[in-house]
Amino acid sequence: MEKMVYFFGEGKAEGNITMKKTLGGKGAGLAEMTNIGVPVPPGFTITSQCCLYYEKHKKYPKGLEEQIDENLKKLENAMGQKFASFDAPLLVSVRSGAAISMPGMMDTILNLGLNEEIANNLASNTNPRFVYDSFRRLIQMYGDVVMGVEHEDFEEIIQHTKDKKGVKEDAGLTADDWKEIAGKFKKLIKEKTGKDFPENPKDQLLGAVNAVFSSWDNKRAKEYRRINNIPGDLGTAVNVQAMVFGNRGEGCSTGVAFTRNPATGENIFYGEYLLDAQGEDVVAGIRTPGPISHKQKEESGSDLDAFEDVMPETYSELEDVRKKLEGHFKEMEDLEFTVEDNKLWILQTRTGKRTAMAAVKIAVDMVGEGLIDNKEAIMRVSPDQVDQLLHPMIDPRAELNVIAKGLPASPGAASGKVVFTADEAVEKAKAGEKVLLVRHVTSPEDIGGMHAAEGILTSRGGMTSHAAVVARGMGAPCIVGAEDISIDYKAKRFTVGDVTVKEGEPITIDGTTGRVILGDVPTIEPEISGDFQKIMEWADEIRRLGVRANADTPHDAKQARDFGAEGIGLARTEHMFFGEDRIPAMREMILSETPEERKKALDKILPMQRGDFEGLFKAMDGYPVIIRLLDPPLHEFLPEDKKTIEELANNMGISAEKVEAKIASLEEANPMLGLRGCRLGILIPEITEMQARAIIEAAVNVANKNVKVIPKIMIPLAGRKEEVASQRELIEKVAEKVFKEKGKPVDYQIGTMIELPRAALTADKIAEVADFFSYGTNDLTQTTFGFSRDDVGKYTPDYIEKGILPNDPFQTLDQEGVGQLVEMGLKKGKKANPDLEVGICGEHGGDPASIEFCHKIGLDYVSCSPFRVPVARLAAAQAVLKEKNN
Amino acid sequence: MEKMVYFFGEGKAEGNITMKKTLGGKGAGLAEMTNIGVPVPPGFTITSQCCLYYEKHKKYPKGLEEQIDENLKKLENAMGQKFASFDAPLLVSVRSGAAISMPGMMDTILNLGLNEEIANNLASNTNPRFVYDSFRRLIQMYGDVVMGVEHEDFEEIIQHTKDKKGVKEDAGLTADDWKEIAGKFKKLIKEKTGKDFPENPKDQLLGAVNAVFSSWDNKRAKEYRRINNIPGDLGTAVNVQAMVFGNRGEGCSTGVAFTRNPATGENIFYGEYLLDAQGEDVVAGIRTPGPISHKQKEESGSDLDAFEDVMPETYSELEDVRKKLEGHFKEMEDLEFTVEDNKLWILQTRTGKRTAMAAVKIAVDMVGEGLIDNKEAIMRVSPDQVDQLLHPMIDPRAELNVIAKGLPASPGAASGKVVFTADEAVEKAKAGEKVLLVRHVTSPEDIGGMHAAEGILTSRGGMTSHAAVVARGMGAPCIVGAEDISIDYKAKRFTVGDVTVKEGEPITIDGTTGRVILGDVPTIEPEISGDFQKIMEWADEIRRLGVRANADTPHDAKQARDFGAEGIGLARTEHMFFGEDRIPAMREMILSETPEERKKALDKILPMQRGDFEGLFKAMDGYPVIIRLLDPPLHEFLPEDKKTIEELANNMGISAEKVEAKIASLEEANPMLGLRGCRLGILIPEITEMQARAIIEAAVNVANKNVKVIPKIMIPLAGRKEEVASQRELIEKVAEKVFKEKGKPVDYQIGTMIELPRAALTADKIAEVADFFSYGTNDLTQTTFGFSRDDVGKYTPDYIEKGILPNDPFQTLDQEGVGQLVEMGLKKGKKANPDLEVGICGEHGGDPASIEFCHKIGLDYVSCSPFRVPVARLAAAQAVLKEKNN
Repeated sequence: MEKMVYFFGEGKAEGNITMKKTLGGKGAGLAEMTNIGVPVPPGFTITSQCCLYYEKHKKYPKGLEEQIDENLKKLENAMGQKFASFDAPLLVSVRSGAAISMPGMMDTILNLGLNEEIANNLASNTNPRFVYDSFRRLIQMYGDVVMGVEHEDFEEIIQHTKDKKGVKEDAGLTADDWKEIAGKFKKLIKEKTGKDFPENPKDQLLGAVNAVFSSWDNKRAKEYRRINNIPGDLGTAVNVQAMVFGNRGEGCSTGVAFTRNPATGENIFYGEYLLDAQGEDVVAGIRTPGPISHKQKEESGSDLDAFEDVMPETYSELEDVRKKLEGHFKEMEDLEFTVEDNKLWILQTRTGKRTAMAAVKIAVDMVGEGLIDNKEAIMRVSPDQVDQLLHPMIDPRAELNVIAKGLPASPGAASGKVVFTADEAVEKAKAGEKVLLVRHVTSPEDIGGMHAAEGILTSRGGMTSHAAVVARGMGAPCIVGAEDISIDYKAKRFTVGDVTVKEGEPITIDGTTGRVILGDVPTIEPEISGDFQKIMEWADEIRRLGVRANADTPHDAKQARDFGAEGIGLARTEHMFFGEDRIPAMREMILSETPEERKKALDKILPMQRGDFEGLFKAMDGYPVIIRLLDPPLHEFLPEDKKTIEELANNMGISAEKVEAKIASLEEANPMLGLRGCRLGILIPEITEMQARAIIEAAVNVANKNVKVIPKIMIPLAGRKEEVASQRELIEKVAEKVFKEKGKPVDYQIGTMIELPRAALTADKIAEVADFFSYGTNDLTQTTFGFSRDDVGKYTPDYIEKGILPNDPFQTLDQEGVGQLVEMGLKKGKKANPDLEVGICGEHGGDPASIEFCHKIGLDYVSCSPFRVPVARLAAAQAVLKEKNN
Repeated sequence: MEKMVYFFGEGKAEGNITMKKTLGGKGAGLAEMTNIGVPVPPGFTITSQCCLYYEKHKKYPKGLEEQIDENLKKLENAMGQKFASFDAPLLVSVRSGAAISMPGMMDTILNLGLNEEIANNLASNTNPRFVYDSFRRLIQMYGDVVMGVEHEDFEEIIQHTKDKKGVKEDAGLTADDWKEIAGKFKKLIKEKTGKDFPENPKDQLLGAVNAVFSSWDNKRAKEYRRINNIPGDLGTAVNVQAMVFGNRGEGCSTGVAFTRNPATGENIFYGEYLLDAQGEDVVAGIRTPGPISHKQKEESGSDLDAFEDVMPETYSELEDVRKKLEGHFKEMEDLEFTVEDNKLWILQTRTGKRTAMAAVKIAVDMVGEGLIDNKEAIMRVSPDQVDQLLHPMIDPRAELNVIAKGLPASPGAASGKVVFTADEAVEKAKAGEKVLLVRHVTSPEDIGGMHAAEGILTSRGGMTSHAAVVARGMGAPCIVGAEDISIDYKAKRFTVGDVTVKEGEPITIDGTTGRVILGDVPTIEPEISGDFQKIMEWADEIRRLGVRANADTPHDAKQARDFGAEGIGLARTEHMFFGEDRIPAMREMILSETPEERKKALDKILPMQRGDFEGLFKAMDGYPVIIRLLDPPLHEFLPEDKKTIEELANNMGISAEKVEAKIASLEEANPMLGLRGCRLGILIPEITEMQARAIIEAAVNVANKNVKVIPKIMIPLAGRKEEVASQRELIEKVAEKVFKEKGKPVDYQIGTMIELPRAALTADKIAEVADFFSYGTNDLTQTTFGFSRDDVGKYTPDYIEKGILPNDPFQTLDQEGVGQLVEMGLKKGKKANPDLEVGICGEHGGDPASIEFCHKIGLDYVSCSPFRVPVARLAAAQAVLKEKNN
């Protein structure tokens, strides 16, 4: 017969830590602890497979009840007690425990095995108050968790009794009071459910087991699994364990502890305990628990006695357990303990949750202590957490008046006076004020103001809206889509509920969590400690993927280098056109009627662009710089307001009507799929010629100053080989001319974005005329899904809610669909051109899951915002290590 | 040494008709005719490979000049003449001739071998006027074609001489006049080019050969190749042939003839001739040529004598040649002949061009005559031509005042009084007037007016604009993008150049050619003759692809059946919502705040939709009907004008502001990629439920009337399996309910459009929950290319012009890119679900090249506008036959 129940106790367990799938995390932990000699109350674990069977067939698999009976007998023997006996009744707890910890499931029922008769008998022999208190706890938990009676209904009965007796604390109630309450609880259950509380302990046990099984598929659990991407076919194990009591008076206590400080990572024993209490009391917060260790007491400045001082002998045992667990699991553990009559029992152990800072310190310390090696240390830090280390944070001790929540678009905290236009942001910032830019949405014209502001808050838009993308690029804190905020530009204020915030009033945003906070709030600048540096160095030794940054300015480029970027994977040239000194020339260019006029306007822009590129090349001395030719639709550069249109018309000596007509003629039904990308450079070759000249001239100039330049010119939005070939021809002609003029050639490359399905599908053809590919997975996701990034907010939340989409494909690369194109294009491209370099520069380049995919399929590098560079370095190293583990 | 020159003459040729690639069409035809005993003046052909070599290296391949000399000698022997001799000089013509006939290339130079000395000598021995006339023709042609002197400059000299002599016709000029003219021609050449006309016959010959070689890559030829999709690496052959003269007086004549009537296909000898003339004179139109045969004379009512009567013996020889050629080539041939001193020479033969009507008649007749079989007959009709047979045509005899040209969006001719709004079209049509709707563009709200109008003319938009697609669907003549037309809606008129057309004035459009014509023009209704029927039946026997129609109304469905459609491949339900009786309910639905309100509005639409579907099912008795659920963005249904908004608000009892706000909230940056397709049905399940109920109820109702219904419900714009699965679940629930209510189930299927790259990429997953796929290649082309159909007009003309795109991918399926996705999705889908039916319902379903591709990859059917159904049937049969030939 299949083994469905695993025993643990008396120093030996049938299971072990590797059996999480079968025994759940808790069960496997209990088994492992038993095996390594940690004092664990004996018990047994029913496998998750039984849960799945029960859920499907609504009955137990054959033989399960027999195996439960057998193991119950073993447990009786181990405890020298008997289930359902009067004299030495065995009491047990029943706990759920899946392979992955899931708060949505049933948690715990204690004291199973008591009933009225047994309780009365026990009460007469031992401590009656303790017995009846335990009995009512059983009825209450069982009634709530198994039979579905509201928790509050039980609490009401207790409160009623206390009121009647005129006492405030549970401690004021006597044995008789608890006995009476137990009776009322049973009546309540009968009333509410029509069923009796089961007096037969065996019925109680099976009822509890069934309830655990069923909790796997309750609504909350399903919801939790959906949100956390946990598969539905794991099932949960059930742990049946002998009860131990921390609330039997003197010599009793209970607590939870971390083997190191989970906030800082410091190597001190850290936790909380209560004397004469059950585990749930620590969490309930009725009494304030004390610190575990001396050191902890010192650091926290607690008035309470440390457990180390109160129960020094038990503490020493606990300290042994701590060492044993860390030595065995090589991890910072989170454990629960109970002391009954001065005997220490460990009820649970699991990997301890920790802050980013702690994760880094613990990992590096453990390498120093010889517990783990570099590689393991790398795996111990979550790339998503790393982000926390690079931005200022809200001081956790500060009191916050949170007035709204939005999407956490770019991490970090920022405070400043509210402004509603980019111009004002620039002006006030020049005057030395710290400002926070608040807009419905931002557009490329706002770039200056966004730079000037401490942070950006928008009431609309998603995680890949303009504000979000640009802010992440700049490393500026940003919240988008804070829909409760209603902005009145005219009145220069925004309202949210009853709160009105006027221009000039201070607010704080927390881009890491999406909280909008009234007023200035103290923030802390996290240090990038030596430990973090060490982890990054180890990661760099291991990773195979290159990591570059998306950077448009020398300032961003420098920051990217500081964060370890090995070049620029994407410099967007259009951002350079929005400067006050440039946009007029750009507009003239767009409004030109003839190539000659156009060239005249472009000639004005040329020296500015050349200067920009010189700055980038200098900042990236020795590293490649990929410069993308003009990409966005031209109408983005044109003014919308009457006044600017008139000025522009005046300057150009044409009528305002003509300017307006041109603006209208550039309007498009679907600009995302319109006249943009290389379509611009093909229709208006003068633009490509000017940009190529600016890049090549800049490269030669900087090379003459002993800087190593590696310029790479990137053609956007190509879908056909012919597009790349024709632009390439144009660029090469310009380069030849410049080299002749300057008398000095430099090496350069010409490549293309792969951001349309057709480009990936015909990558073999395109690779014949490209030196490199860079996947623009933002646009590739738009076209592959047929999702407009600007409009997707209308339906994707519903899609994710309904499980139709697992997550936002603009955040995490859709490996099944878009990823297929990425892999196809990579393979076809490299086959046709083995020297082809292939990377990715979409938003996904900074997303750990996507980075792992990029590694797996064999891309050469990822490119992301400067602030994501450390994240990418770590994720790339982890990808290598995960691969080896498989 | 490689053979570079092929001789033909004296009943034997080195080449034959299969060598078109090497010898060109003309050379291969001359060789073949020689071999089968047709009297052809001897000569030789220089291969196209030599042309390619010359174009690349700017010199002859080694040995070519020697081979030319050798063959010239052979030719001298055959003719008993000598090139460049005084006594019996050999005169030759040089003609280009590529594998595919190309009007852009150099055509002909005659009389090579004459120079001043030889001419003088010949003149003194023979007919001096003829000699000097021939000589000046040589200088003129050579000067024009080889040396680049303007044709007009030569003509001016002739005119000047005629004026001086006071004569009107060339015939009035004497031998001396021509001699003088020849001298002046030579001076002109020297003046214009600085070079002498070559007096050395060998230099003449090589100069002409080089000119032919070079003409392959001249601008006109390139342009022609680009337009006609002819590859650039074919090269042209050069034919050097002994001269024969139809202009040496008595017993001389020349002509062109078709072996059958190219307009009607009737089996009569049909052509034109002139006595005492050279071939070019027939074309030049100075004298009116006479009919070839008696029958032709009778039918055309010509006053001129038939060649049959004037030169009965030669005619009888010519008739023999006609029979020989048809018997040999099994085709209707187009031939050129010259009679010199009563000796018949055939100078060229090629397949004769013909009208659609003629193509059909000739093909069927030739099967009757035993010349070809059914299969060959099917190949003889071009699917593109078939369209001509299904629409009224402009009477070719009518005089036309063409005022503008646009894109021929939907074939056929239509006349009517101009109206500028859909409402007016409806009104006037009700009053019995024939109207023509003229708009900038049309939108779904105009459907009613489009139906009411005889034809549609728009000043903007491309071949797949709304007007174009809808008009083709209706079979209504339509011209789009007639950009010269400037419409003034307010003044109710349009202008084009100096012409102003006011509302109510008649115009005619020719949707087959794109011509806009002032006034009413007589049209002819072409009959679908029995011959055409026969071809269609033969096609149906052979084709493997199913052919269905895109039809939204019972009327269209009936038409589709008449044209042979085997079901409806796409019924768009949204068109049904635009009716005056429905749009208010639709708008209420969109503006509803709660599912209940929404359901109430949908309940009003339900019976109307059910009625629509009943009509479709009845019309398609026994054939499948694929009904697509609501697809377009909701804002398309909402009004834009203030008045309608206010009415709507009134009717619904809400404020106009609220309606406006809702309209604004539905606006999207890129509606093509926005909230549409199944995203609607997932966000607002009530829509899908209503539509599913209408379809299933209609199916049951009609089935109860002994009609065989095969309903198929199609989910639009899916990109993930989960989308299809969730909609499927919804539909199945509704169907179960309806079956219970009605007490009778019917078989039905649920499938999905494949119109997003992601759908094709994950077709294996989607096929698990779909019974059929239908490729929406319009949208798939948009997303694969990243081309917005509405905006593509800004850059694709330039792309095609520059050779970056070979053609409009919305007209002909892009096999390399989009086709890859179609094939991938098909294979993955069928592998996962072998019962899966896969078809195509995009515009490409009616395009012959695309149909061939669909056949090749193994689709089950194509679906197209009713009027394209015969085209598709024929193209599908040809695809099978082409496959067998490979």
